[in-house]
Amino acid sequence: MEYYYSDIPVSGNKIILLEEEHTHCSRVKRHKQGDVIFILDGKGTQFDAEISEIRRNETILTVLEKTVENPFKTEKIIAISPTKNPSRLEWFVEKATEIGATSIIFVQCERTDKKTLKADRLKKITVSALKQCGRKFLPNLHFISSLQEVNHCIRLKDFQKYIAHCRQNEVHMMKKVDSSKNQIILIGPEGDFTDSEILWALNNSFIPVSLGSNRLRTETAGLYALVCMGLN
Amino acid sequence: MEYYYSDIPVSGNKIILLEEEHTHCSRVKRHKQGDVIFILDGKGTQFDAEISEIRRNETILTVLEKTVENPFKTEKIIAISPTKNPSRLEWFVEKATEIGATSIIFVQCERTDKKTLKADRLKKITVSALKQCGRKFLPNLHFISSLQEVNHCIRLKDFQKYIAHCRQNEVHMMKKVDSSKNQIILIGPEGDFTDSEILWALNNSFIPVSLGSNRLRTETAGLYALVCMGLN
Repeated sequence: MEYYYSDIPVSGNKIILLEEEHTHCSRVKRHKQGDVIFILDGKGTQFDAEISEIRRNETILTVLEKTVENPFKTEKIIAISPTKNPSRLEWFVEKATEIGATSIIFVQCERTDKKTLKADRLKKITVSALKQCGRKFLPNLHFISSLQEVNHCIRLKDFQKYIAHCRQNEVHMMKKVDSSKNQIILIGPEGDFTDSEILWALNNSFIPVSLGSNRLRTETAGLYALVCMGLN
Repeated sequence: MEYYYSDIPVSGNKIILLEEEHTHCSRVKRHKQGDVIFILDGKGTQFDAEISEIRRNETILTVLEKTVENPFKTEKIIAISPTKNPSRLEWFVEKATEIGATSIIFVQCERTDKKTLKADRLKKITVSALKQCGRKFLPNLHFISSLQEVNHCIRLKDFQKYIAHCRQNEVHMMKKVDSSKNQIILIGPEGDFTDSEILWALNNSFIPVSLGSNRLRTETAGLYALVCMGLN
């Protein structure tokens, strides 16, 4: 099933594809007037729509059918330090979208090496992963400049809160996670969280968890945790 | 902790680093005679060793201490169709090594697009992931030209055997996996396994499982399944 993306509010029963989506539909896939394609808005709705007109810079569609998916039952949030290597971070964002993160928070930890992120580029990666996997909701992307801001960018009431740090004697998260509840996990940078960051997390009732005995890269740890949180 | 790799059998108490490992140790990290470094052989042994001599093309070390790790309690095997895009496959091999696959079987399925693989390149990726994550055993890499050969390249007696295909009505693997047992899962190509491949798997008591509602890319499915198999 081939999906397109448009977050432009539907006016009446018309949908418009612009830029890459328009180009992909009309030039790459060579769709013609009368063809039926599937559009996701990233907010839970899929439109089955017929191409009514292909203009130079836009494709105009008429909605035939609209399917609305309920929002996620539970939040699966990863707060993660950006990796120094941008391609590793982009891999992570693609995979986190496929696997089902509801929000990704990019945290500038004290030891984070990567200071600047291309928000537009990361958003585009979530859109392309969304179309690829047929998921109906885009993950929300947040960018914060310290771990402590996690509490401000998302209301974490009734969340199961975890922190994966590399100190010894953590419990293994697998035996703790109740995936029927809202969850958030903090994944630190190469070089781990600082003591003060860990102390802050513990004081804010984040539970320290282990992701196994191997020393996982930041993006691997993020994906590992996400799969664990997703299990029901 | 900084690891090096050498699979050259230790003679007496001497270890030799060659090629990249020698260059990395002597040129990149600028280690000198007398420095102590850690060497993994990929077969369960870690050597704490002192640099006794750095020659032009090799570094000679003297073993100070030897730590032997027991083999894996259980096998976690992924038999996966190579992806068309080599970087996606290489990413998978790195992650599978970090997370703890004991064997990776690259299967030429009927719909596999990628016919040739660089075995040396893939082996190098497992070595570099091994050093990065401190794992003591390299995963075994197998290359087979049809799904049916899975039975020949590994003795699957007493294995929990799974196949993740995209037909409807599979059980969700999460509720089935007993990670205290040997496990193998078959991950198909883009375009899925053919009916005859699925029929063969079912006739060979592979249990069909689902990896969730999203349509995962091949390498994402492999990673997802591997994390699930690893949970205890």
